[in-house]
Amino acid sequence: MTAYAELETIFRRIYALRGAGAMLGWDNAAMMPANSGEPRGEQLAALAEVTHEMMTAPNLGELIAKAETESLNDWQKANLREMKRNWQHEVAVPAELVSALTKACHESELFWRTARKENDFKSFAPYQEKVLHLVRESAQAKAAALKLSPYDALLDQYDSGTMSAYIDPIFADLAAFLPGFIAQVMEKQAKEKPPLDITGTFPVAKQKALGLEFMQKLGFDFTRGRLDESTHPFCGGVPGDIRLTTRYNEQDFLSGFFGVMHETGHALYEMGLPEAWRNQPVGEARGMAFHESQSLLTEMQLCISLDFLEYAAPLMRTAFGVSGPEWKPDNIYRQMTRVRPSLIRVDADEATYPAHVILRYRLEKDMIAGKLAVRDLPEAWNVQMQQLLGITPDSDANGCMQDIHWPDGSFGYFPTYTLGAMTAAQLFQTAKKMIPDLTQYIRKGEFQPLYAWLKENLHKQGSKYSSPDLLKHATGKTLDAAIYKKHLETRYLS
Amino acid sequence: MTAYAELETIFRRIYALRGAGAMLGWDNAAMMPANSGEPRGEQLAALAEVTHEMMTAPNLGELIAKAETESLNDWQKANLREMKRNWQHEVAVPAELVSALTKACHESELFWRTARKENDFKSFAPYQEKVLHLVRESAQAKAAALKLSPYDALLDQYDSGTMSAYIDPIFADLAAFLPGFIAQVMEKQAKEKPPLDITGTFPVAKQKALGLEFMQKLGFDFTRGRLDESTHPFCGGVPGDIRLTTRYNEQDFLSGFFGVMHETGHALYEMGLPEAWRNQPVGEARGMAFHESQSLLTEMQLCISLDFLEYAAPLMRTAFGVSGPEWKPDNIYRQMTRVRPSLIRVDADEATYPAHVILRYRLEKDMIAGKLAVRDLPEAWNVQMQQLLGITPDSDANGCMQDIHWPDGSFGYFPTYTLGAMTAAQLFQTAKKMIPDLTQYIRKGEFQPLYAWLKENLHKQGSKYSSPDLLKHATGKTLDAAIYKKHLETRYLS
Repeated sequence: MTAYAELETIFRRIYALRGAGAMLGWDNAAMMPANSGEPRGEQLAALAEVTHEMMTAPNLGELIAKAETESLNDWQKANLREMKRNWQHEVAVPAELVSALTKACHESELFWRTARKENDFKSFAPYQEKVLHLVRESAQAKAAALKLSPYDALLDQYDSGTMSAYIDPIFADLAAFLPGFIAQVMEKQAKEKPPLDITGTFPVAKQKALGLEFMQKLGFDFTRGRLDESTHPFCGGVPGDIRLTTRYNEQDFLSGFFGVMHETGHALYEMGLPEAWRNQPVGEARGMAFHESQSLLTEMQLCISLDFLEYAAPLMRTAFGVSGPEWKPDNIYRQMTRVRPSLIRVDADEATYPAHVILRYRLEKDMIAGKLAVRDLPEAWNVQMQQLLGITPDSDANGCMQDIHWPDGSFGYFPTYTLGAMTAAQLFQTAKKMIPDLTQYIRKGEFQPLYAWLKENLHKQGSKYSSPDLLKHATGKTLDAAIYKKHLETRYLS
Repeated sequence: MTAYAELETIFRRIYALRGAGAMLGWDNAAMMPANSGEPRGEQLAALAEVTHEMMTAPNLGELIAKAETESLNDWQKANLREMKRNWQHEVAVPAELVSALTKACHESELFWRTARKENDFKSFAPYQEKVLHLVRESAQAKAAALKLSPYDALLDQYDSGTMSAYIDPIFADLAAFLPGFIAQVMEKQAKEKPPLDITGTFPVAKQKALGLEFMQKLGFDFTRGRLDESTHPFCGGVPGDIRLTTRYNEQDFLSGFFGVMHETGHALYEMGLPEAWRNQPVGEARGMAFHESQSLLTEMQLCISLDFLEYAAPLMRTAFGVSGPEWKPDNIYRQMTRVRPSLIRVDADEATYPAHVILRYRLEKDMIAGKLAVRDLPEAWNVQMQQLLGITPDSDANGCMQDIHWPDGSFGYFPTYTLGAMTAAQLFQTAKKMIPDLTQYIRKGEFQPLYAWLKENLHKQGSKYSSPDLLKHATGKTLDAAIYKKHLETRYLS
């Protein structure tokens, strides 16, 4: 047996055990009884320990080094590269530091839940400082192993090949564009007659039936996946067994519907990953920005469009037995594209969302570099907020304490949201070029051509390429801010 | 750290990983999409491999030997004994034999599914022979390690301390009793006016609501468990997170209802196991006969009784909005206690069921001892069937090929059904003595006194005692056939 073959066997088992953990994670959120957390915690911890031990086994480094001298095809080479990357992330940080960080994040997140409610940044700051201190130590350890800067090493956890040198000019471009653009959109929308409100009571059973119908139309395979409910919607499970969740609000149909479409975008990516490499690192999705690109392509590019709504609005009207001008495609579209700077990222519209992300990107980069202290975070936040969105938070709860990411130690994750949105626009632009009748297909509810193209050019590539190279493979170029700006201008200003 | 403490750590992890497997097993049956079997198979296989490797780690035997010299309390001693027993079962059989047996069972079970439909014993026999050959080899290996006879080593897998020397006289007693008893019951019932049929359509939602209501009344904790649907009802999950399943037939309410009560009996046992020992071998249920005793105590002793039905029948009538003489407690009771020898074990009534089990016990004991060849099985089956139940199968499909157990290599399991039924009767007899007003409680729908007694005297003991000793602990004596015969006579002849 070659060293490479031996590695495949090891990673196959790691993949299966992580898959078991993913299924249990879904169960936690969608099925588990209220007081069953203790045995579940033990099950997940045991799985994490076992896979960690396998990843840090003394012989793994030698096997990787040996496999690098063996004759491999392109996919195998890419697989070995991903194995090595995963392994480096796992062994770079000493066990005591991992466990100190896990503990600090847990305590910090717990304290944050209360402190945010009480708008008490001062009491929370020491927890955040401790987390930041340990994240920086961990980032430095990873940086040394991966030969990257500490912040790039954190980015690499979520997206391979997307370094800050790649992001910086793109975000700078966008940051320069956004304030003026948002002002223009606001001015334009202020002059227009506002869209009609879409109100009513939308029974859960009917919302669910319609969501399932559209999931099916988009290509979700219900023999290899299901849709359930959870407090925080997500796409879980494993590629051969996808578990989507959503939540229903009987007073608000639209956000639930587009939420299901968003998660379906994630699901179709997982379902389209290369089957031959399903249980190997190279067979996995290419990072969080691409993942978000697939949910946002479905939600923002495909579904929130007049073409899609031409097809979907009649089905919505039938589903709920409603009619009236507010249910016309144009009105729904205008409802879904209202722009207004606001304090909370998760409630932000498409146009202002990137400003929330750029703000966080700038601040977390400075924190990791040691240029911004936790105690100075509220002020720095408010300055950026004013600069990017022209508003100032009324409280830290609605400012620098609003997100769970920093309290639970996730630094380097935020940029993937906007990179995903931009990637979605770029992919959709290419898809429109490559599928000449795409608009016509969409207006008829034929989504197969779009997803077949995505599967062929993106999903089936797994993690064969780095993120920038994958985008280049699919669209002919790396990430281009001009395309996203064009998308925003076309949608909001023309 | 003492060797014993180290063992506890190891077994805690094994327990958690097996628990993960149990949750996934439930998901398989109750939730998994139709075509997601492949990733699930890989997850379960990886979990089984990892736990097997932990159980057969080279240092485990030494740790056990060392722990045996350490100072331990009674529970720890019992825990160590159970660790050792589990370990012996796991290491006794060489890995190649385990894997050959797994493969043979898989192939045999697959072939059996078709062969049974086609009533083709001849084609199936070579598969069964191969399985039997490997089971015997495995039994011999376990026998040598455990210092038991081969068949006793198989029994020990399901029930510790219940050897064939213990079962033989009990089953001989019952086998001598049953034919005459069954004839008497048939004669008596033939003379009586038959019970009224209970027909109608019983909507699933209403059946489910009533089942949940009674589960709650019996003490099922829905913050630590749930009820779902599957083709084959079972009690799955882990003690802190019990997953019951059932199936509904809109034309047959009664069998579904008592089925849920049966599974609830299993669940209450698991829920009552000692919390302090939850993740250790000594904290687990004391074997399959005791498990079946808890389901049958609930179903056969508690629920199929006039006392229970006095309380339950009005609630059934309300649930379905029905009335009429067929819904009187006495009529439901008489419906549920009809006796008639039949060919299929799983459809058999309470009185004839033990005959099905004794037949299988005799035959499998002979097969393991090498006294009965697979090719001679149909004839031996039919002879026993005639002798014990006075009927002869019309086909092997309805005879020696009806059960999945032998095709999939489960020898030594069958006796636990009847040992469970007898244990249930003995426990219930004691409970009635120890709780003077038990009958009154039951007629009022107060089940807490019964289950509190069971929890205290049985559930909380986990696997501290061997099966015979546990029964002695709870009822003052080991298994007594006279009590079960008395139960049958009282119910069916008085």
